[in-house]
Amino acid sequence: LGSIASGETIRATLFPGDGIGPEIADSVKQVFRAADVPIDWEEQYVGTEIDPRTGSFLTWESLESVRKNGIGLKGPMATPIGKGHRSLNLTLRKELGLYANVRPCYSLPGYKTKYDGVNLVTIRENTEGEYSGLEHQVVRGVVESLKIITRQASSRVAEYAFHYAKTHGRQRVSAIHKANIMKKTDGLFLQCCREVAEKYPEIQYEEVIIDNCCMMLVKNPTLFDVLVMPNLYGDIISDLCAGLVGGLGLTPSCNIGESGLALAEAVHGSAPDIAGKNLANPTALLLSGVTMLRHLGLQEKADQIHNAILKTIEEGKYRTRDLGGTASTTEYTNAVCDHL
Amino acid sequence: LGSIASGETIRATLFPGDGIGPEIADSVKQVFRAADVPIDWEEQYVGTEIDPRTGSFLTWESLESVRKNGIGLKGPMATPIGKGHRSLNLTLRKELGLYANVRPCYSLPGYKTKYDGVNLVTIRENTEGEYSGLEHQVVRGVVESLKIITRQASSRVAEYAFHYAKTHGRQRVSAIHKANIMKKTDGLFLQCCREVAEKYPEIQYEEVIIDNCCMMLVKNPTLFDVLVMPNLYGDIISDLCAGLVGGLGLTPSCNIGESGLALAEAVHGSAPDIAGKNLANPTALLLSGVTMLRHLGLQEKADQIHNAILKTIEEGKYRTRDLGGTASTTEYTNAVCDHL
Ligand SMILES: CC(C)[C@H](C(=O)O)[C@@H](O)C(=O)O
Ligand SMILES: CC(C)[C@H](C(=O)O)[C@@H](O)C(=O)O
Repeated sequence: LGSIASGETIRATLFPGDGIGPEIADSVKQVFRAADVPIDWEEQYVGTEIDPRTGSFLTWESLESVRKNGIGLKGPMATPIGKGHRSLNLTLRKELGLYANVRPCYSLPGYKTKYDGVNLVTIRENTEGEYSGLEHQVVRGVVESLKIITRQASSRVAEYAFHYAKTHGRQRVSAIHKANIMKKTDGLFLQCCREVAEKYPEIQYEEVIIDNCCMMLVKNPTLFDVLVMPNLYGDIISDLCAGLVGGLGLTPSCNIGESGLALAEAVHGSAPDIAGKNLANPTALLLSGVTMLRHLGLQEKADQIHNAILKTIEEGKYRTRDLGGTASTTEYTNAVCDHL
Repeated sequence: LGSIASGETIRATLFPGDGIGPEIADSVKQVFRAADVPIDWEEQYVGTEIDPRTGSFLTWESLESVRKNGIGLKGPMATPIGKGHRSLNLTLRKELGLYANVRPCYSLPGYKTKYDGVNLVTIRENTEGEYSGLEHQVVRGVVESLKIITRQASSRVAEYAFHYAKTHGRQRVSAIHKANIMKKTDGLFLQCCREVAEKYPEIQYEEVIIDNCCMMLVKNPTLFDVLVMPNLYGDIISDLCAGLVGGLGLTPSCNIGESGLALAEAVHGSAPDIAGKNLANPTALLLSGVTMLRHLGLQEKADQIHNAILKTIEEGKYRTRDLGGTASTTEYTNAVCDHL
């Protein structure tokens, strides 16, 4: 554990994560170093395997590191289906109070998909809703789970979405819901969005039912700008949107907590099959790192790295296997550094 | 009220529905007549406006008509957001015990979208889950809704999905879930699917997490065959899939109840803005009618009408406005009849 550079100004926590995590984290460190980003990484462990050094999946010290630094970057982590312990991703969200998950999603010039000109941001409530963890068996063969929606969490994420729209030159916020069925829960969510919308007359506001939203997204995603929604809808729609522009290997994500705390993360899988083989695509983690830099106000460095990534992909000479190329993680990373 | 043809063998209930419903229902009647389909329509009312003849949105006689005939076709119906009464669509599902919603989704040759060769079927549990209607305020600013999953409803829809796959020449059933988060509710749903899967060794079975499913669907929908899932996921994914092949104006839907009862329906909106103007596209209701014929075992008539619709769209001379053409509902309907 410990920092990998020193004498710099900003300390940031780095969780390499599971599987390919360490390799792609190395790639971020290399690119950030090459771009002279004033970040001093504090490397910490979280993972689905017990860390032999501490005997733990996640120590209090690791959490404290993010709390103290207020900023961090996290690699992928596996969430085993139906295994005993609660998802570590959820644990981090809960322990660090990460109330908003922000996922910019845009077409990468040079990486062709069926969709052009996508440029939207999904903002997901990250703490409650269908993720309450409250489930029980009523009688044999009848189980229920509770979806919890609170005014506090809904207003907070709505406020974040409108503030984000305003400070990022966005025109419109769409609240995604199913209030025609869940009139009380999604109804409260919408009510909170409407109240916040009133305070931002310069930002357009609309409400779109989730099923219709998904249909519109696959027909014409350029209709959308900023989308804000309860937890599960955000989980679904952010992955759908990532699919439009090439998948989770190419899309960044950043979690926002109170007092400006932010934990950026790659949300793709940990790809155990190719772990340690120098084949992984570090793009999502790199772009998440860029999101982190923007959050810190380091716009110039963010733009510089962002453009180097776009250029490398556009040039197409060094593409990793998932993008149809043959480049290793190292070759791709070197190419990004060359484009800085 | 009353039948529009007589001397035929099968009585079927027809709910024209709201808005453009009556026009597109006329189109179905015309096409079925032209194809000599042995159906005797029993026209009944359900709608968001009170029927002046009965003073009701939906009478007991209307419900009895479907129960007695065992088969019906329904036009679109508006579900007003946040209005007093419960959705009439949900009322029909509940009163008639319509436990499975089946939506075939396939690329129409001749109507180009971004996707080719889509050919899948979503089968949605239609009675419980997030649609329980059980919601309440816990304290001010905190509301909850209950998602209910039962063994009975889950097994029933799983059984329907595998039976459907087997009898329709399908290879694989994918159960869609979020059991990594809702371990008990979606976990029970999966358990029921697994149990049924054991009884159908000739059908492949897989489980796909909903967020990942949506990403895969937008990247490559040809990966899927039959999808079975809880209520809300079905609502979302069936609309997403419809979007891949052109939207709800082109996709059929059929609701299945006990003892072979079936109510086919167009699930698009009632389009009040163009109602009564002879501009509506009757394709979804026509294709739903085709689904109804297949359910009745009238495969030849079903194929005949289906092919006439496909040819009309492929030919492209008579397309309604929503498909970029200028044809009226009547012109399009006449063209379908000419292709019979
Ligand atoms: C891994 C899983 C628990 C997680 C979620 O459902 O939130 C993931 O899908 C995500 O979007 O970060
Ligand atoms: C209108 C609405 C109540 C309905 C639903 O949510 O089930 C619709 O979206 C559908 O899919 O039939």
